[in-house]
Amino acid sequence: MSESPLHIGLIGCGTVGSGVARILSEQHRLLERQCGRRLCLKRVVVRHPDRPRPGLPESVPVTDRIDDILQDESIDLAVQLIGGTDAALDYARRLLQAGRDLVTANKALICAHGSELFQLAGRLKRTIGFEAAVAGGIPVISTLTTALTGNRIESIEGILNGTSNFILSRMLTDNQTYEQALSLAQKQGYAEADPTLDVDGTDAAQKLSILIRLAFATDVPVEKMIRRGIDRIMLSDLEAAAALGYRIKLLAMARRNQEQLEAWVQPALIHHERTLAQTSGADNIVTITGSAVGRLRLAGAGAGQMPTASAVVADIIDYATGRAARTFDAVLRSQTAPSLDIQPQEAPRHRYYIRCTVDDRPHVLADVTDVLGRHEISISSLHQDEPTGANDRPAARLIIMTHQTTEGRMRNADQDLHRLDCVRDQPLRLPVAD
Amino acid sequence: MSESPLHIGLIGCGTVGSGVARILSEQHRLLERQCGRRLCLKRVVVRHPDRPRPGLPESVPVTDRIDDILQDESIDLAVQLIGGTDAALDYARRLLQAGRDLVTANKALICAHGSELFQLAGRLKRTIGFEAAVAGGIPVISTLTTALTGNRIESIEGILNGTSNFILSRMLTDNQTYEQALSLAQKQGYAEADPTLDVDGTDAAQKLSILIRLAFATDVPVEKMIRRGIDRIMLSDLEAAAALGYRIKLLAMARRNQEQLEAWVQPALIHHERTLAQTSGADNIVTITGSAVGRLRLAGAGAGQMPTASAVVADIIDYATGRAARTFDAVLRSQTAPSLDIQPQEAPRHRYYIRCTVDDRPHVLADVTDVLGRHEISISSLHQDEPTGANDRPAARLIIMTHQTTEGRMRNADQDLHRLDCVRDQPLRLPVAD
Repeated sequence: MSESPLHIGLIGCGTVGSGVARILSEQHRLLERQCGRRLCLKRVVVRHPDRPRPGLPESVPVTDRIDDILQDESIDLAVQLIGGTDAALDYARRLLQAGRDLVTANKALICAHGSELFQLAGRLKRTIGFEAAVAGGIPVISTLTTALTGNRIESIEGILNGTSNFILSRMLTDNQTYEQALSLAQKQGYAEADPTLDVDGTDAAQKLSILIRLAFATDVPVEKMIRRGIDRIMLSDLEAAAALGYRIKLLAMARRNQEQLEAWVQPALIHHERTLAQTSGADNIVTITGSAVGRLRLAGAGAGQMPTASAVVADIIDYATGRAARTFDAVLRSQTAPSLDIQPQEAPRHRYYIRCTVDDRPHVLADVTDVLGRHEISISSLHQDEPTGANDRPAARLIIMTHQTTEGRMRNADQDLHRLDCVRDQPLRLPVAD
Repeated sequence: MSESPLHIGLIGCGTVGSGVARILSEQHRLLERQCGRRLCLKRVVVRHPDRPRPGLPESVPVTDRIDDILQDESIDLAVQLIGGTDAALDYARRLLQAGRDLVTANKALICAHGSELFQLAGRLKRTIGFEAAVAGGIPVISTLTTALTGNRIESIEGILNGTSNFILSRMLTDNQTYEQALSLAQKQGYAEADPTLDVDGTDAAQKLSILIRLAFATDVPVEKMIRRGIDRIMLSDLEAAAALGYRIKLLAMARRNQEQLEAWVQPALIHHERTLAQTSGADNIVTITGSAVGRLRLAGAGAGQMPTASAVVADIIDYATGRAARTFDAVLRSQTAPSLDIQPQEAPRHRYYIRCTVDDRPHVLADVTDVLGRHEISISSLHQDEPTGANDRPAARLIIMTHQTTEGRMRNADQDLHRLDCVRDQPLRLPVAD
């Protein structure tokens, strides 16, 4: 190996960071063959340098000062594995300005500030690797930026949040409530103590936004997407969907639709025979449809220490070999493509699953179906269960499948349904993914 | 776009070649953004230059002389899309020696002569791109050579032959015989007029051999693999397997096994809940297990004009951006890793499915099970159907599932079974993939 070693500064040494350190140390021979040079972990910056860091060789200095990396001119590449967008953004800017190339797994950062950071890196002739920011060990970024470069991308759909997928899978297989499955996910390390960003669709929307920028050269802020979480899904919804031949998954979707971009993250019904429906547990899957390749499916561990570290190390090797510079140049050039208009939130067309709880008394079905009819929503099937609840005020659950209609009509109908005296709760509506 | 255009010579303009020409022409803006330079199809060499070539711009000269590309110093990259290994090998050597870089979709060439050509290219500082040689549009080569470079690869298993998968899928879904499904595959363009190399496992074994070289730095000639085709599979086998909870797929497998390499291509029983079992029609799937990433699945169109052209164009873009040189260097370096010994063909351990047709008379079951017992093969389940056939010599079909045993024991038992008077035909044995 003739070339000089690549010196790496690591910022953040939590779960993923220590996984990266472990690969750099355990697989050093493999990595030398891949890179044609040695990879040397030069410094580690963490908030608490006194804590023990198992897996980190003792010879590597650990500090709490980012300046130690900013000022060490021997360091070529900064691998930034911290969360949040405040310190992370500040560090990223300063690292680029100090001449460091960057690898990060921070999806919130790349989603919210990717455009700015990409431009800054472009001006400074630096690179940013962010494979690990989307879908953990699944190489979806490199597939979009290298393997599918001869394709016009038509659509990306995926299950991008392992926590939600774990919860929905376990509810159905283990006959659990949402709360029970969430608690299990937390116990097994698949959900944070505060699971909000996972279960409300924010995490999946951030990842989708990053993929959209690469595939469609379009910036779609998370706030502009239809975004719904899984917290209102009940076991009985999963069972009702299963009886109709569907699974319910938190689905992320972006597709060209009459030269506009349709983009959303929401729980959706997916036909049980589709691979997306069969992706269970904490796994992620991304289906990319390209003009030449057709439908390509990538699936695997979308999170977790070693799968995410695998993606970070792939970015490090890409940098060490000189591929990263070429790919990042191409990413910057691809962003000069005409961007797409974002389709209004009212526009998407789907069939819908509607669940609402109604009083069990005469004329209720007429009232409900009248609302749908007035909004020109045609009913494809309707199931009413035997009533439950106190005898003086029995309630019945309605499951309605509609023919195709628009999100806008469904929203209006939803409000009108909720206003009916006989409707007990906010109806749940889920699109059917086709 | 400041850089000079990349001049391409195309050798072979059949199905895939004309697909490549179509992408180069229809997506030229997209490609320019990806490459930072124009891609210019300079010359096309075909066997019959007089035939009409729809999709090929009229300005591109078409000849039948390879010398036109060998002697045109303005051509940087030769895209060789011809089959076979005679002219293809001769051309590849001469093109590399004439200073051309190479992109090819020829799996037989890379399987049989990849080592020689890689070394030659290395000495001459040229590159060879061969993404399209394995699994069409699925980026399995680039996943192994870039995305998973931080992983020690533990196993690769896949459905790598679309023709066989189409036939086996259609037999079960359409209740067809092998011959009927094969004929349908030929009508729909999924099988050649002579389907031998597809249905006997050769095609899948060639692809597996290429993946093994990349993942395990080991040369496994097709002749050294256990290789069985699908032509003895009957509809009744698919049905019997389904009743037991399995699908039968032509499976390609390579995995580390006590620091030896287990490698085979054969029809195998796969549990119906596994994604591999659910991959139907002409689709391919590759499951790669890496030390860090865990189990990664890639699936999509493994053949066909545009998916294969998509992979060829990805290789062209990789070359145009300068990534190919870096990746190919890394591939050459990775081949210096210690290679693995190939496990003896007798060694693999599986459960087995055995189907044999026996006389319907006393003591037959005792004879059959005695043979298995003498070879220390333990029976897990046994089904005997009601007898069929002429009344004077009725036959019964036995379906036996064994506990785990070795391929060697099964081979010996197989021979002894076949020698029994009561056994009518060569028993069929299929491993159960775990």
